[in-house]
Amino acid sequence: MTTTEQTDTQAILAVLDEVHAAIAAGDAERALAAGAPDTVAFTLAPPLVQPSGSPGEAVAGLAEWIASFAAPPRLAHREPTVHVDGDVAFVHTLTSMSGVKGGEFTLWFRSTYGLRRVDGRWLIVHQHESVPFHMDGSFRAAVELAP
Amino acid sequence: MTTTEQTDTQAILAVLDEVHAAIAAGDAERALAAGAPDTVAFTLAPPLVQPSGSPGEAVAGLAEWIASFAAPPRLAHREPTVHVDGDVAFVHTLTSMSGVKGGEFTLWFRSTYGLRRVDGRWLIVHQHESVPFHMDGSFRAAVELAP
Repeated sequence: MTTTEQTDTQAILAVLDEVHAAIAAGDAERALAAGAPDTVAFTLAPPLVQPSGSPGEAVAGLAEWIASFAAPPRLAHREPTVHVDGDVAFVHTLTSMSGVKGGEFTLWFRSTYGLRRVDGRWLIVHQHESVPFHMDGSFRAAVELAP
Repeated sequence: MTTTEQTDTQAILAVLDEVHAAIAAGDAERALAAGAPDTVAFTLAPPLVQPSGSPGEAVAGLAEWIASFAAPPRLAHREPTVHVDGDVAFVHTLTSMSGVKGGEFTLWFRSTYGLRRVDGRWLIVHQHESVPFHMDGSFRAAVELAP
């Protein structure tokens, strides 16, 4: 890996960590600061693609989601892999989310991020989060898996 | 978009189309030719991350999957978006899969690809496919959605 790649990789991972730190602090606006205005999000919840609302709507939606937990959930990436060249990058990783909603839980899911550097800042332009589903005819989401 | 980006975008989309054409032809080895040996796959089916077996195992696994349908399934991307700079690219899109297994069905899912250009060839180094799941307490995979 070149020095440039190493520097960019660190900057990209810092952006992703900042999002988790902001969520843990219950700060929806700060969590969305690294997102491009037209980011394309494939989330754990339906629909297939999140509709791109106004920035205000996005902040309100995330704040409502954070408030649905007894305390802000804690998210962490496990050994994220970064591929970067020039101003385009993608990251894949497993992610854990721990929180209290009803009971205490930890959910492991897969995360892929697509980023672009715009005016010197890495922005998340695409995010894909998921769990697989069981192919035994039950169509149950596999929320019980762990690495 | 620069001419280079346009050329790279066309080359990347051709790689993805080639995979679908190979699956439609029932040719597992050809379908996997665009995959890097150490590609990291987050698939519709568990586990969270597909174990990276030998190339022979990968071909056998895909051939078995294709053979589980009455005829090879047909896959198509819907308006894929490509981000590329230098030798790194990512693509996000919705994908339809139509086939006959039990009954006739069409499944819509989200796809993200990460690619690297190695020795002049675009290789798929990461693939993430998923449907969301219902947050109504049922944990049902949302296999009934369409764009």
